[in-house]
Amino acid sequence: LQSKLPSVGTTIFTVMSTLAQEHQAINLSQGFPDFAMDPRLIDAVDQAMREGANQYTHMNGHPLLRERIAGKVGHLYGAGVDPQTEITVTPGATYAIYTSLTCILRPGDEVIVFEPAYDSYIPTIEVNGATAVRVPLQFPHYSIDWDLVKKAITPRTRMILLNTPHNPTGSVWTDADFRMLETLVEGTDILLMSDEVYEHITFDGYRHPSILKYPVLRARAFACFSFGKAYHCTGWKIGYCIAPPALTTEFRKVHQFNCFSTNTPAQLGLARYLENREAYESLPAFFQRKRDLFLGLMKDSPFRWLDSKGSYFVLGSYGHFSQEPDTDFAIRLTKEYGVAVIPVSVFYQDGKDDKVVRFCFAKEDKTLEEAARRLTSV
Amino acid sequence: LQSKLPSVGTTIFTVMSTLAQEHQAINLSQGFPDFAMDPRLIDAVDQAMREGANQYTHMNGHPLLRERIAGKVGHLYGAGVDPQTEITVTPGATYAIYTSLTCILRPGDEVIVFEPAYDSYIPTIEVNGATAVRVPLQFPHYSIDWDLVKKAITPRTRMILLNTPHNPTGSVWTDADFRMLETLVEGTDILLMSDEVYEHITFDGYRHPSILKYPVLRARAFACFSFGKAYHCTGWKIGYCIAPPALTTEFRKVHQFNCFSTNTPAQLGLARYLENREAYESLPAFFQRKRDLFLGLMKDSPFRWLDSKGSYFVLGSYGHFSQEPDTDFAIRLTKEYGVAVIPVSVFYQDGKDDKVVRFCFAKEDKTLEEAARRLTSV
Ligand SMILES: CSCCC(=O)C(=O)O
Ligand SMILES: CSCCC(=O)C(=O)O
Repeated sequence: LQSKLPSVGTTIFTVMSTLAQEHQAINLSQGFPDFAMDPRLIDAVDQAMREGANQYTHMNGHPLLRERIAGKVGHLYGAGVDPQTEITVTPGATYAIYTSLTCILRPGDEVIVFEPAYDSYIPTIEVNGATAVRVPLQFPHYSIDWDLVKKAITPRTRMILLNTPHNPTGSVWTDADFRMLETLVEGTDILLMSDEVYEHITFDGYRHPSILKYPVLRARAFACFSFGKAYHCTGWKIGYCIAPPALTTEFRKVHQFNCFSTNTPAQLGLARYLENREAYESLPAFFQRKRDLFLGLMKDSPFRWLDSKGSYFVLGSYGHFSQEPDTDFAIRLTKEYGVAVIPVSVFYQDGKDDKVVRFCFAKEDKTLEEAARRLTSV
Repeated sequence: LQSKLPSVGTTIFTVMSTLAQEHQAINLSQGFPDFAMDPRLIDAVDQAMREGANQYTHMNGHPLLRERIAGKVGHLYGAGVDPQTEITVTPGATYAIYTSLTCILRPGDEVIVFEPAYDSYIPTIEVNGATAVRVPLQFPHYSIDWDLVKKAITPRTRMILLNTPHNPTGSVWTDADFRMLETLVEGTDILLMSDEVYEHITFDGYRHPSILKYPVLRARAFACFSFGKAYHCTGWKIGYCIAPPALTTEFRKVHQFNCFSTNTPAQLGLARYLENREAYESLPAFFQRKRDLFLGLMKDSPFRWLDSKGSYFVLGSYGHFSQEPDTDFAIRLTKEYGVAVIPVSVFYQDGKDDKVVRFCFAKEDKTLEEAARRLTSV
């Protein structure tokens, strides 16, 4: 058997979460909260099951949920989105990303990917026979060098993938970045996939400027979102894709034969829960407090902290006190200090190692306190 | 935009369910029950959510659920299956089928498909750049002509897809069929995908002989199963794939970047619920009663009934009283008589029309009674 994906091993998130369990380490590696979700959302899903909402709902998503998504997007981004022709509910954002790429990419196509890159992007490109063209973000701010992007574009460029707030770095796109992208793609047939799963998790007054706010970009973009990240239920696996009608048509052709439809009671429960705007309006402050608590607690640790403007994550730099490769360092932190983190070099194809590891601060205060206690002695 | 799947329209199941809704017809088209699921299973999922099982579980499936699946498969088929290396839980069986094919197929590969074929198979083959080679089942018993299968095999044959109990016809594979398949594939590198979503729904004493019982076949097969069909919760979208370790490795490479993991509380709830063997041991009798009730109620209708040995479905033949194409006939039944059904010609690439339509009898007794009342006057 000759593998179609010979270079794919087990994702780093599973590797580190498993190692964390084996060593009873505090798991600041894989991105998920360890605090309780809102019991009202659990009540809403329970009620949906009791009402009998347990059979297939519409393959494109429960109609009420699509309506509520349109309402939320209108409220947050001032964007009018049609629930019938532009929104598809999916079993998670990773699936939405997979399906966006798969419905478009053909052998020979090139896709521009910024590195460090979330680890699903490149295998998804490659399983479709297309090629990833990598553009590095500029250490240590992980900003974009638009000249490099310009140079990476060829007649074969079919898509550009973007992700803001950015995983794993916590950097965000500025309005100027979106404008630059507009200039680059206008008049071409390059499509976009915009991974916005951390849309609600932004700090210091910065508010996420979704791609949906930029008409030139939106007209060619699959924008992918996550309910799991927003409502502290990553294990429910519910997300959605917003794309203009012609792209949504292609997306649904694959979706229809990939998963077909998404968990009905979770969709109906979320739809009813989304009546409360407060549930998402409170998120930036909630997570900023977590970030600030974590950084405050860590001030006696030897790490230097890079700027996190959004997402669940902050990068800790350790090059000033150790030259260990970041993968070894992450394993040692887990085994010797009892705190699991994610090495960032795995998100570069060439393993570029800037001696930074990713910490997830979407955790109970007491988890962060104990992690800080353990890391002070590093 | 040049579509990758130019010939894919909206699946017949969505078309007919939508038409049924518009005309307030009784929906015997799309395969899902209209009766309540076991409230104990709802309780189990609710409990899982309250316990906080709302974050990502292991990407290959909740460990307890994989253990319980192994137990069930051992009990039913006498097959020893390793939860670590051979079972992957998925968001539904359609997804398991999609992922099985996608992790193997390359441009130029051929895949043998029996027609009538469940409508996800061929687009899934084609989105991977492979080609479907169609072998017709033999009307009216939908048996397999093994000479035709033999002739369809070429050096490019990469997979054969099988489905028993069969959707849409209700036919089943005999032990002789499995033996013939063994003879055909032994010594070749042809792989198999066995769609067994109706494993529990068999009649008249016939018990499903899973591919897992045939070591020669099992060693090269992705076997795909559904909890939704088994436990009357098609909308929960939980299934699983059993395959030998080398194939499971490839399956998981795609799964990891397609959906990554499956709804955690539903998995934990199902795992605990699966302690009751009675939940699945009672299914053949439960569904046989439904089939027999339906056929009894329909004895004054003009349809002739083909043999249904398994699945949710029975085919009604109408060629002796109408020569209408089956798609027109199905639409007319929906609009004029208020009963939605599925035309079978859509499951043939060339639209072969044997003047049969598919009825789903997985419905409340009173639904079947009212449908029969409406159809008596056809
Ligand atoms: C899909 S598992 C990984 C979760 C996540 O987004 C992360 O840790 O980066
Ligand atoms: C995935 S929707 C179709 C359900 C089904 O299996 C059928 O009706 O045949």
